[in-house]
Amino acid sequence: MTKLELFEQVKQKQSFLCVGLDTDKKKIPRHLLEMEDPIYEFNKAIVDATVPYCVAFKPNLAFYESEGTAGWMSLEKSIAYIRQRYPEQFIIADAKRGDIGNTSEMYARTFFETLKADAVTVAPYMGEDSVKPFLNQPGRWVVLLALTSNKGSLDFQLTANASGERLFEKVLRVSQKWASNEQMMYVVGATQGKRFEEVRKIAPNHFLLVPGVGAQGGSLEEVCRYGMNQECGLLVNSSRAIIYADQGEGFAHAAAEEAAKLQKEMQAMLHKYL
Amino acid sequence: MTKLELFEQVKQKQSFLCVGLDTDKKKIPRHLLEMEDPIYEFNKAIVDATVPYCVAFKPNLAFYESEGTAGWMSLEKSIAYIRQRYPEQFIIADAKRGDIGNTSEMYARTFFETLKADAVTVAPYMGEDSVKPFLNQPGRWVVLLALTSNKGSLDFQLTANASGERLFEKVLRVSQKWASNEQMMYVVGATQGKRFEEVRKIAPNHFLLVPGVGAQGGSLEEVCRYGMNQECGLLVNSSRAIIYADQGEGFAHAAAEEAAKLQKEMQAMLHKYL
Repeated sequence: MTKLELFEQVKQKQSFLCVGLDTDKKKIPRHLLEMEDPIYEFNKAIVDATVPYCVAFKPNLAFYESEGTAGWMSLEKSIAYIRQRYPEQFIIADAKRGDIGNTSEMYARTFFETLKADAVTVAPYMGEDSVKPFLNQPGRWVVLLALTSNKGSLDFQLTANASGERLFEKVLRVSQKWASNEQMMYVVGATQGKRFEEVRKIAPNHFLLVPGVGAQGGSLEEVCRYGMNQECGLLVNSSRAIIYADQGEGFAHAAAEEAAKLQKEMQAMLHKYL
Repeated sequence: MTKLELFEQVKQKQSFLCVGLDTDKKKIPRHLLEMEDPIYEFNKAIVDATVPYCVAFKPNLAFYESEGTAGWMSLEKSIAYIRQRYPEQFIIADAKRGDIGNTSEMYARTFFETLKADAVTVAPYMGEDSVKPFLNQPGRWVVLLALTSNKGSLDFQLTANASGERLFEKVLRVSQKWASNEQMMYVVGATQGKRFEEVRKIAPNHFLLVPGVGAQGGSLEEVCRYGMNQECGLLVNSSRAIIYADQGEGFAHAAAEEAAKLQKEMQAMLHKYL
């Protein structure tokens, strides 16, 4: 998917919501556990219910891998379902991978060829040759970790070098030599508030994937005030607050309501800041 | 496995070799492709052939994930085979994971409970709460990326902060607050040569996992001269040079010969530097 196509989706749906499919067997409604593939059934219901209100889905690989082979099967089926039924949705494999060149190539094969995702999250620590193999196909995206939403983001990401440039700023600057904003996005946590201004100084035109609204406590208003650009430039993710809004029979309906609420807020933000 | 038990293995086998199971269906001998699970059959043969000469096995997840569900099945079976048949071998899941706390917890579950590995490689970019969930079980290890073997290690890992401390040094220093050297190892690439001296100033007693001997061109002699400590403190990995030593029917025998050759060199190094 191109950046323009993604922006078109945002305008059409008046939403820049990404629904995180962090599907944990221990948290899904009991009645689904009787079915053959509970994780897939849960995802299908969540996808059908929330798709009018979001432009992207983001399964986090950790949740599937923890179920071993069965989890991988659920993941493959879930992505195939979205791909086939809602081809206009942007799919992000949240995997935070990154390895030496020949190994990253294998990961790229996994996420783009086997799973057919549009984008994959990648960790920058190992540098250029660990990221480049993910950039071989136009329309397929790398979402590079820049400034994450968690407390641990303070440990290394904010370390300044001798000329005052912090690690996340160096990641934003240097990685722009590897790909244009037609193939590269950055993860910037919603909990980072005003730091979005600093991110936008270096990456004014990139889409940013923003986790941390909801369970982690980030503010949508702040993210938009400091982070929105003329093509929106934001994909704001919510996982737990949507998919576990209700853990009983009405889970899908409750998820839709949560997603719709966020979509309304996002519509207001688009009117205010776009 | 404790550090002492690992060192005992090293002394007994006179080897600190880790064999990397980077098993790629495109590179394994043709005749195996007729079998039901070629990747598993290949691994089994390689493990049986090389186990006298090594103390650890390291499957790299990328190679298994690229085969989707079938690949995960091969991985699970391969690890279970080693676990059962050679319980004294150290098994490292080379996954380079790391995510926010609740997600890293899921990954820890995958690698330690589902797969039953002894150790998992983790990327430090997201800081403390992304690493800690892997440290909940005594005898289970985190192998944290510090100074990697690839060209991209120059991009961020060597960036010095205002007081001259480079990122890899900060990672080595700060992460020692998260766990002792009974649960933490570091990845330091064999291609880093003299920099092992700098690593040892900060982490004198840790085991280091050292990729990059063989296909990537690192020197075993240099690694040992600058990196070996009084408990050996090194696990030197070789993947491609061993497992693809011969791509015909005699692949396992050729792999054993390569591993034996390295074991001999390692024995000499142990005599020289231990």
